[in-house]
Amino acid sequence: MIKTKVITIGDEILLGQIINSNSAYINSKLYSVGIKVNKVVEIGDNKEDFIYELQDSFENYNITLITGGLGPTHDDITKSVLIDFFEDKLILNDKILEHVKNFFAKREIVMPESNVEQAMVPSTAKIIWNEYGTAPGILMEKDDKVFISMPGVPFEMKAMIDNSILFLLKDKFQNYFDSVVKSKTILTTGIGESLLAEKIGDVNEILNGHNLAFLPSPLGVRLRIDVKTDSEESAKEEINIIENKLIEKIGEYVFGFNEELLEEILGKKLFEKNLTLAVAESCTGGILSSRITDIPGSSNYFLGGVCSYSNEAKIEILSVHKNTISKFGAVSEETAIEMANNVRKKFNSNFGLSTTGIAGPTGGTDDKPLGLTYIGFSSKEKSYAKKFIFGDNRERNRMRTAQAALNILRKEI
Amino acid sequence: MIKTKVITIGDEILLGQIINSNSAYINSKLYSVGIKVNKVVEIGDNKEDFIYELQDSFENYNITLITGGLGPTHDDITKSVLIDFFEDKLILNDKILEHVKNFFAKREIVMPESNVEQAMVPSTAKIIWNEYGTAPGILMEKDDKVFISMPGVPFEMKAMIDNSILFLLKDKFQNYFDSVVKSKTILTTGIGESLLAEKIGDVNEILNGHNLAFLPSPLGVRLRIDVKTDSEESAKEEINIIENKLIEKIGEYVFGFNEELLEEILGKKLFEKNLTLAVAESCTGGILSSRITDIPGSSNYFLGGVCSYSNEAKIEILSVHKNTISKFGAVSEETAIEMANNVRKKFNSNFGLSTTGIAGPTGGTDDKPLGLTYIGFSSKEKSYAKKFIFGDNRERNRMRTAQAALNILRKEI
Repeated sequence: MIKTKVITIGDEILLGQIINSNSAYINSKLYSVGIKVNKVVEIGDNKEDFIYELQDSFENYNITLITGGLGPTHDDITKSVLIDFFEDKLILNDKILEHVKNFFAKREIVMPESNVEQAMVPSTAKIIWNEYGTAPGILMEKDDKVFISMPGVPFEMKAMIDNSILFLLKDKFQNYFDSVVKSKTILTTGIGESLLAEKIGDVNEILNGHNLAFLPSPLGVRLRIDVKTDSEESAKEEINIIENKLIEKIGEYVFGFNEELLEEILGKKLFEKNLTLAVAESCTGGILSSRITDIPGSSNYFLGGVCSYSNEAKIEILSVHKNTISKFGAVSEETAIEMANNVRKKFNSNFGLSTTGIAGPTGGTDDKPLGLTYIGFSSKEKSYAKKFIFGDNRERNRMRTAQAALNILRKEI
Repeated sequence: MIKTKVITIGDEILLGQIINSNSAYINSKLYSVGIKVNKVVEIGDNKEDFIYELQDSFENYNITLITGGLGPTHDDITKSVLIDFFEDKLILNDKILEHVKNFFAKREIVMPESNVEQAMVPSTAKIIWNEYGTAPGILMEKDDKVFISMPGVPFEMKAMIDNSILFLLKDKFQNYFDSVVKSKTILTTGIGESLLAEKIGDVNEILNGHNLAFLPSPLGVRLRIDVKTDSEESAKEEINIIENKLIEKIGEYVFGFNEELLEEILGKKLFEKNLTLAVAESCTGGILSSRITDIPGSSNYFLGGVCSYSNEAKIEILSVHKNTISKFGAVSEETAIEMANNVRKKFNSNFGLSTTGIAGPTGGTDDKPLGLTYIGFSSKEKSYAKKFIFGDNRERNRMRTAQAALNILRKEI
């Protein structure tokens, strides 16, 4: 098997100022073509550490992918260390210089002089085109070990992976793929990790020597099936067998597979059935509608929403009865139902969803504890509200409420 | 100086299924008490790799923090490898067992039998209390090298870091802190990395031997000043000098410092001046209101919003004139202004903000290209809309629009 390592460079990661989302993207894309990343190392903007990792890569890994440290500013060190390590020198690449100049011209901005630096590349490097930015990617080889350096800006790096690097790697290492590794992830929501494990029971009986990983998150527990066999076909078959056994036991909690999002699954259903939705949000304050509208094409089924964050807004904009709020409270079954009904009528949609709850960190009482949440559902045929008691963390309560609301609608369609 | 390493365990990270946000949190918290993490390593659920990293830690690092692999399900390996490495054995801890039992009782759920496992801990370990979950943290020492293992669930791990681990480490390693390292980050928005660098000019003249890092993101470029001196006081002084020089050159683009969020800064200003806000969102579809309501206490100044994702909603709910939309289009200066004015009046707030744009991935024309966006502002005194041309990526366009809208209001207050 080939061994693969990812190096991310940048003090900002080691100081915890940004999250390393780049390596997650690289890992998942490489895995999708059968290359499993064995190790990710994060180091700072530090020449010695980078040289140490390059040496380790040269000795132990076939493929090394590097992100970060390629920008036009003074703190970027990657290129100078690479030419030292490969005993190479930088030369001006006219095509890249033209690309960089065009990049600024298109945006009607005068090119800062420092950007000429971007067109300087190692003389033995293969250039990887940067569609969305000015710093090119660089591929260098030494004794059949491949080193690829990319910018740290996520969308520039992602386009390089998708449009060039996956093809280059598949092509170069095609003879190495002896066994087939495949995964499938089952997405559940509305049940905790250990209860899910109990419902599944003896995993060894189900797995036939393969693997199952439990991945908890505030949006639900994901179950990843990993199989390793000698052919694409048998891998699919093995996954199918395990998946069916799992679905039999926990199917009621499953909403999708792999990278699917609940808002995406829901959107497809609404679109296919030509149904529309409007939402009235209190405690989620826009999370529900922003998740729905994250999906391209959501304007086909999402008509809009009201974020009624104050009681006045609930009464004036959403026409919730004053008495309902004074008698039962803003966080109540009755208010949730009225919110869902009224938003559906106002937007003239097929469905209405509503959220109202005590997200925290304060506002809880003995009667209505922190985390108390009602989610309202409304269609022409029926309306109701479901009660939840989430925890005492504002962020998680809001996320869980939005997820539970989408799941209620998914089950109704 | 002490050397620190973080190990995160879990196939889900190496397969790219989750982003490693844990290490970012650990890194930033440790840095805040003067401990800089030198290296982060991500490995899979693999005993050999874990043993290899433990050995490397033992030889080269004073502190090793480990997350992941402590849950109740079968794929968690951390505890068994640790007792092998430390030649220890597991014993039952009654206090933890009681905590685990209570944990389920409080939620009115029957405890799955597998959770008894959580109360089994190495006999020589110091226990770190898990306030929010069932798997305890474990601290073990060997020849003055400290190893701390925590669960991988982010909020459980975070509480352990904040409530126990930072104090333990500060206490144990207080004699090692010979020099003082301090950072401050200046947050800018509305200007690109290289143009910002050009406006700043010769950094060496400003930095007096210290460091400046450029950290671009869709929300703006952050500038991190790093200084290393021999006292707390002189570190603060050095930072002050550099900061003032930078502000002089680029002050108009600066909205805050360090971990501050634009929505938080804005919220404080609104709250202090007793002013209120309502928003009308089209292309941002709820992002603006969800960011505003992310902030605890936002109900003091945020009255609510309308997500008018369809033309009908703009006309029916927001009372935008039919003619405005038919004559100028939904994405126009005129519509943006009406949206901002009307939402302000409907919610009876001091300010109204609106967004309307072509977020993509489709919908652009020659006249109105993908990324075209108008942001409307309204107060009793004045109203206007600003035009932006963002890129062709839906997600980034929506993020940039929300950020630009918040920034417009910040400048107005």
